Amino acid sequence: MNMNALGYYNGKWGPLDEMTVPMNDRGCYFGDGVYDAASCANGVIFTLDEHVDRFFVSAALLEIKLHYSKEELKKILNEMVSKMDAGEYIVYWQATRGTARRIHAFAGEKSNLWIMIKAAVIPDLSKKIKLITMEDTRFLCCNIKTINLIPNVIAAQRAQEAGCYETVFHRGEIVTECSHSNVHIIKNGRFITHPADNLILRGIARSHLVQACGRLGILVEERTFTLAELFAADEVLTSSTTTFGLSADTIDGKPVGGKAPDLLKKIQQEVMREFTEVTGYTWKR
Amino acid sequence: MNMNALGYYNGKWGPLDEMTVPMNDRGCYFGDGVYDAASCANGVIFTLDEHVDRFFVSAALLEIKLHYSKEELKKILNEMVSKMDAGEYIVYWQATRGTARRIHAFAGEKSNLWIMIKAAVIPDLSKKIKLITMEDTRFLCCNIKTINLIPNVIAAQRAQEAGCYETVFHRGEIVTECSHSNVHIIKNGRFITHPADNLILRGIARSHLVQACGRLGILVEERTFTLAELFAADEVLTSSTTTFGLSADTIDGKPVGGKAPDLLKKIQQEVMREFTEVTGYTWKR
Repeated sequence: MNMNALGYYNGKWGPLDEMTVPMNDRGCYFGDGVYDAASCANGVIFTLDEHVDRFFVSAALLEIKLHYSKEELKKILNEMVSKMDAGEYIVYWQATRGTARRIHAFAGEKSNLWIMIKAAVIPDLSKKIKLITMEDTRFLCCNIKTINLIPNVIAAQRAQEAGCYETVFHRGEIVTECSHSNVHIIKNGRFITHPADNLILRGIARSHLVQACGRLGILVEERTFTLAELFAADEVLTSSTTTFGLSADTIDGKPVGGKAPDLLKKIQQEVMREFTEVTGYTWKR
Repeated sequence: MNMNALGYYNGKWGPLDEMTVPMNDRGCYFGDGVYDAASCANGVIFTLDEHVDRFFVSAALLEIKLHYSKEELKKILNEMVSKMDAGEYIVYWQATRGTARRIHAFAGEKSNLWIMIKAAVIPDLSKKIKLITMEDTRFLCCNIKTINLIPNVIAAQRAQEAGCYETVFHRGEIVTECSHSNVHIIKNGRFITHPADNLILRGIARSHLVQACGRLGILVEERTFTLAELFAADEVLTSSTTTFGLSADTIDGKPVGGKAPDLLKKIQQEVMREFTEVTGYTWKR
């Protein structure tokens, strides 16, 4: 059976919209789990090794024991991808701490593996996005990719209501990241991005942007930057697993970026070159 | 069919450990929901009105639309309680934002109602508890009773590993609350408790402790207090829906409290008097 949206739970799989899980899964009432997700095209999951590595780090940081190896997980993910119709997908998976009646402390329950695969359109990177800003009130473990995502949900909703693509979080004057993306600036020929500390997710698309800059001879500064620097940047980019590197032309309704279009295009083309080379994906748009 | 642990989901109910929910429930992958819980004895849910009121506030603050009235919810909760064996229970319920494939922003999905009822032992308030302390790194919306509870889970786990009952969170020097309780001190005849701002949950047991103090003529100060004040307090109390008001004799292994036992006992007896009066519950221990 081929399908266009698949769900998997501890070995059982089927059409995503029909899948069920136990009410007692600790993910359901504590959000007690970690996840990761990767882009998939032509049946190839892009940068799977890096996403699986990060997933194992997230699980370790939350003390969620995974009862499978990285190779076993990759095999399962690839098996599930093989059941899909042709197309472009996001392959999402999460581990919750286990199944038990609700008590905060844990007791060595066996963790649960969830997978959700659904269509994801690879965006046209020449299109501009619009952003809004919001104070970052999230917890101080944003480096762990957990499913405690209420502030991210609310921020994404505010962006959607404003007709924008994403919300840029800031702690006071310091820009951190977005609701489901990292954010970076280009200024005076340099690529500037927040350090991968506990205040942002260590994005894999972010890492590939940095590496693309390296190959192109563009200097990278991994340092905090302010809202004022964001608004005054030559270019503003967001990055995520499914969007690679999208640039913004307004933030909170004010024009931003557009002052280093050639450099921006070089970086975007370099990350897309890598993606198309690895996946053999041909961009139809 | 009577049972000792019941689950309910959008009108369907059964033994808790057999209940399932859709994988696409937004609670499962975003922790996108709010909850509340109340003690139940003799088939009477204690302070149900207050818990339902707070639940509706939590839902409103997270913009989760509830498609039932408070009266309708109370009727459902009481119906589910009527299916239970005799005993003491915690009645837990949560609303998740709805069921949909995973996208951060929401689109008017119908919220889901979950109920979980299971045994909960009413504690002996004369017993002392032990506490540990931990820096509070949670998000800044602790006033909303959400199911984004990973920091609480980890803190409760640390307490359990230390052979303690609870973990006291502090932001720098300021004590906030515990992983699943509020915390208060008695000093020089006064009851001191953190203001019900965005850094703590507005506990209903906390509110009943304050009201008990009022009836007893004990002055209440609703203000922040420091770790130093905690360690130097005459008595240290925690409170939660299922524990009313438990006092501590050590924190981080150091002796605390025990300097105002009569006042402590008066307050504890007053909150238990109210509970037994309302529920008709007779304490067997």
